[in-house]
Amino acid sequence: MTINNVSQAKVCGGWHKQYTHESATLNCTMRFAIFLPPSAVKSNPVPVLYWLSGLTCSDENFMQKAGAFRRAAELGIAIVAPDTSPRGEEVADDENYDLGQGAGFYLNATQEPWSRHYHMYDYVTKELPEIIEANFPVSQVKSIAGHSMGGHGALTIGLKNSQQYRSTSAFSPICNPMQCPWGQKAFNAYLGNEFEAWREYDASELLKQAPSELPILVDQGDADGFLAEQLKPEALVAAAQLHQSKVEVRMQPGYDHSYFFIASFIDQHLDFHARYLNQ
Amino acid sequence: MTINNVSQAKVCGGWHKQYTHESATLNCTMRFAIFLPPSAVKSNPVPVLYWLSGLTCSDENFMQKAGAFRRAAELGIAIVAPDTSPRGEEVADDENYDLGQGAGFYLNATQEPWSRHYHMYDYVTKELPEIIEANFPVSQVKSIAGHSMGGHGALTIGLKNSQQYRSTSAFSPICNPMQCPWGQKAFNAYLGNEFEAWREYDASELLKQAPSELPILVDQGDADGFLAEQLKPEALVAAAQLHQSKVEVRMQPGYDHSYFFIASFIDQHLDFHARYLNQ
Repeated sequence: MTINNVSQAKVCGGWHKQYTHESATLNCTMRFAIFLPPSAVKSNPVPVLYWLSGLTCSDENFMQKAGAFRRAAELGIAIVAPDTSPRGEEVADDENYDLGQGAGFYLNATQEPWSRHYHMYDYVTKELPEIIEANFPVSQVKSIAGHSMGGHGALTIGLKNSQQYRSTSAFSPICNPMQCPWGQKAFNAYLGNEFEAWREYDASELLKQAPSELPILVDQGDADGFLAEQLKPEALVAAAQLHQSKVEVRMQPGYDHSYFFIASFIDQHLDFHARYLNQ
Repeated sequence: MTINNVSQAKVCGGWHKQYTHESATLNCTMRFAIFLPPSAVKSNPVPVLYWLSGLTCSDENFMQKAGAFRRAAELGIAIVAPDTSPRGEEVADDENYDLGQGAGFYLNATQEPWSRHYHMYDYVTKELPEIIEANFPVSQVKSIAGHSMGGHGALTIGLKNSQQYRSTSAFSPICNPMQCPWGQKAFNAYLGNEFEAWREYDASELLKQAPSELPILVDQGDADGFLAEQLKPEALVAAAQLHQSKVEVRMQPGYDHSYFFIASFIDQHLDFHARYLNQ
């Protein structure tokens, strides 16, 4: 598993670095970014927060816009940001922003023409952590967070792998993709019309099926233009209440769907994850 | 002076907003961005830090990447970011990134074809503050800061208007533009070959000519690829020492020219300005 360093910059006493590698899971060249806090050395491996971005994003949006490094450096947490889909000229795509490249939805596609490359679920849960743990001074202790489509990814991946992740948080997540246009379009394309497969990638459905002990924090702006049609946090809250699962959803007055919202509360999310990562 | 709101987003309890307006100084439509801290209301006008960005930037780079709002909100400081040049199809331009649109160098051009629009010095020191003070809950108390070409702008504008600005700070500024390729190319185009005019826009020359009481803080990364050829902080230090002017230049080991560097030290710059703005 060779990785190639393509950029590095010192930030907040630590390092932001980008790498490319050949992904066996996705059958294409992928890029990811990692922030290493100043405390990360071989003799002191640090825990990792995986960040999953939203539609149209790459590994760069969060790293450039979230303002997360000051607090992550203080807390001694590494952050890894993968891309949001497989990439490349040979990778199937769609002309719209909400399907294909930049819109992998963190699932394993079973349908043509997507099934050859679109296995972001396996990439994020298996291949990427193996690469990170083999190449950087990090421990196997990890949590996961994300925004919008990446919030959906963080919630579903956390709920399905609660032994692997200590905690999950999300900004403005797609909480019930089976019941919103973004999710229905993507699931229909990637998974076909077998609804049982859809349920496996729907955080509200997963919380309906079984109780969860995974600590989950969700922040949602009430001025978010996607709130009512696409995001549906009320479905997540109702599903969590069924089995008293550990889900806190906070409505934040006046905030929209942008990275300005993420920058406003990222310190609180890092503090939340640190309580579990640094135990 | 009509201004048109083109975006707004709540951030860190305050607001980030963008506006366009017809600039009489620049003879074109301009866009600027303002961050208003939560404490800014008509009955509590807040001081303003003007931020000048570097080559190729617009009003957006600092606002999206610097991570400045948390601390600015705590300190009760507004931040205003203008564009880096006049803009538009009718505005003279050059095919290279370091001349023309995106490269106004914060001066008043006297040469064709630049002199019709390129008056960024007057725009930043006169027209823009008038617009800001007429339209927002801010006081006339102000400081100025910037990065690279914008660091040159902040230093020269501060030094030439030390009654108007309480303090100046810069990241990786072009300290001695008469002696570097970026500055020589721009000054030759915008000002012609009269060196006396060049001196008025060179921070090191201004500090040679007369002592300064203006508090100035400069941070410079020692891994900055532009350091030796373009930035020349040693000239600024030598000029400040001539008359014991109040200039602190800090070399920061390992940091480069990027916004990751700015994000690492912006809190310290805001604290520096707050000492003078909130007196």
